[in-house]
Amino acid sequence: MRLCEIGERALLKGLAPIGYPEGAPLPPGDDAGGVWMGGEAWLLKTDGFLYREVALVGMGPFEVGFRGVAATASDLLVKMARPLGFTLGLFLPGDLEVGFARRLVKGAAEAARRLGAHLLGGDTNRGEEVALTVSGFGPAQSPLPREASPGDLLYLAGDRWGRVGAAIRAHYQGRDLGAFPLIREAAFYPLPRLGLLALRGLLRGALDSSDGLSETLWQLAELGVRVDLEALPLHPDVLAFAGGEEEAVELVLFGGEEFEAVLVVPPEAEAQVLARAGEAGLPLFRAGRVGEGEGVYFRGAPVPRRGYAHF
Amino acid sequence: MRLCEIGERALLKGLAPIGYPEGAPLPPGDDAGGVWMGGEAWLLKTDGFLYREVALVGMGPFEVGFRGVAATASDLLVKMARPLGFTLGLFLPGDLEVGFARRLVKGAAEAARRLGAHLLGGDTNRGEEVALTVSGFGPAQSPLPREASPGDLLYLAGDRWGRVGAAIRAHYQGRDLGAFPLIREAAFYPLPRLGLLALRGLLRGALDSSDGLSETLWQLAELGVRVDLEALPLHPDVLAFAGGEEEAVELVLFGGEEFEAVLVVPPEAEAQVLARAGEAGLPLFRAGRVGEGEGVYFRGAPVPRRGYAHF
Repeated sequence: MRLCEIGERALLKGLAPIGYPEGAPLPPGDDAGGVWMGGEAWLLKTDGFLYREVALVGMGPFEVGFRGVAATASDLLVKMARPLGFTLGLFLPGDLEVGFARRLVKGAAEAARRLGAHLLGGDTNRGEEVALTVSGFGPAQSPLPREASPGDLLYLAGDRWGRVGAAIRAHYQGRDLGAFPLIREAAFYPLPRLGLLALRGLLRGALDSSDGLSETLWQLAELGVRVDLEALPLHPDVLAFAGGEEEAVELVLFGGEEFEAVLVVPPEAEAQVLARAGEAGLPLFRAGRVGEGEGVYFRGAPVPRRGYAHF
Repeated sequence: MRLCEIGERALLKGLAPIGYPEGAPLPPGDDAGGVWMGGEAWLLKTDGFLYREVALVGMGPFEVGFRGVAATASDLLVKMARPLGFTLGLFLPGDLEVGFARRLVKGAAEAARRLGAHLLGGDTNRGEEVALTVSGFGPAQSPLPREASPGDLLYLAGDRWGRVGAAIRAHYQGRDLGAFPLIREAAFYPLPRLGLLALRGLLRGALDSSDGLSETLWQLAELGVRVDLEALPLHPDVLAFAGGEEEAVELVLFGGEEFEAVLVVPPEAEAQVLARAGEAGLPLFRAGRVGEGEGVYFRGAPVPRRGYAHF
């Protein structure tokens, strides 16, 4: 059996438990892994990608480096870990300009800086094409797994929903983003949200959304619940870009690369979650609820499972 | 200027300080990076490589996965950090067998297990060829930099010196290692040494040796000292493989991939270092001393700087 036959999700599912510690702060296959140390969880996360697969038109090495740290930091933050530092594993062709490599690292450093964290070195290797692997670590007092109970509320944190989907579409359609600065910003500099840490202790569960909201919600439903979307955040610029509500909903559901969090909120914690998010400047959008059953629905209609997979 | 023109060392030297924290436990460009946290240093290390560049004849994905964790763990241990966990960033061709990926991860898990550590997940991506990036982290009470003062003694820890060099030569010459089980073991399963932690607080400095002893000693000399080798560990099996003392010395000086430590020992600490290493079962070999001046010498003759570089 070959990788392209079983697909990335099945591959990761099979690999994740190998060597994973029992009694770990988070189960294997969660957004980040970790160990207990002195009553605290220490989480470690690695995310890799090919340069050409994430560089949209107009993005350069600085933006791709920024995006790399953002992707890894997002997984840590959504698990309630404060990222302390990041390393870069770079595969680079020998004829690459040195300035290109420097800008890549500078973009990564800028994302780390804006998260109050640092770059802690890394490694370079010759490769056929530019590929990055970003690792990051940090402590979490109460690491937050992927969990949901019927009756819980669904919130979407952040304001990149639909915007990154729009930027990806613009890339493939050759559309200019000059008139859509917020869409460009969301795709080029998707800074994860330190404000998530203000919600420590209040949430039932959380998932990082990076392969599209639909895929993320399907992963939530796989825990054995039904996900009912009642509303989606449709920003005016996303509506204007999309040309209609239906098209904007598509961009929100099947975008990807948001590096935003899906939060599962017990109803009794809702008021406090909203208050703390308000103080922390964290945008929150109430999108629906969790019920008994299975599948993902938007206003009663099934949401197809479509998302990004590497194999 | 292109990467292949400036070379890997100059590239890394330029990249290492970008975004690196001031007042960090170790300077940028050391074997691992880190941050202070609650009076303890937390180190993070990433090392990447192409499968085809490290897989010697007879090695399979299990051995290459093992080697990946070993390489990263070695950098942490030599800085006196106890590795807690590792993540894998994998680039894999779509037509690769699933079993190949599993054996790669199982080898990594086995190396982690033998170090009392764990695998904490990772990421898979499609790539043109198999490439791995291994990250690891752990705490260090007193992280050990690369340091040396004239008068210090030089020790080589471990027993893989010359053996891995012999295995690499056997690979390129098509020689069989059946009669040299220790050489094969050293190259196929180069487990770093937890025993190094027994030397906490006693050493002046330490360097991981993975690009060859000569290159490692030249990096030590670059700190502004002269390195005088007086003796080298020449194992009987390495002598037998090499066919003579001169050839065996070559294998020790210009091997690479040992994942062993070069230790800088203040003379007044020597007795205690030897005692603690003995208790911990850590092989130590007194190889020479550090003096004033510059360069690397073996019994008075200059040692050429020859080692592995990726660009």
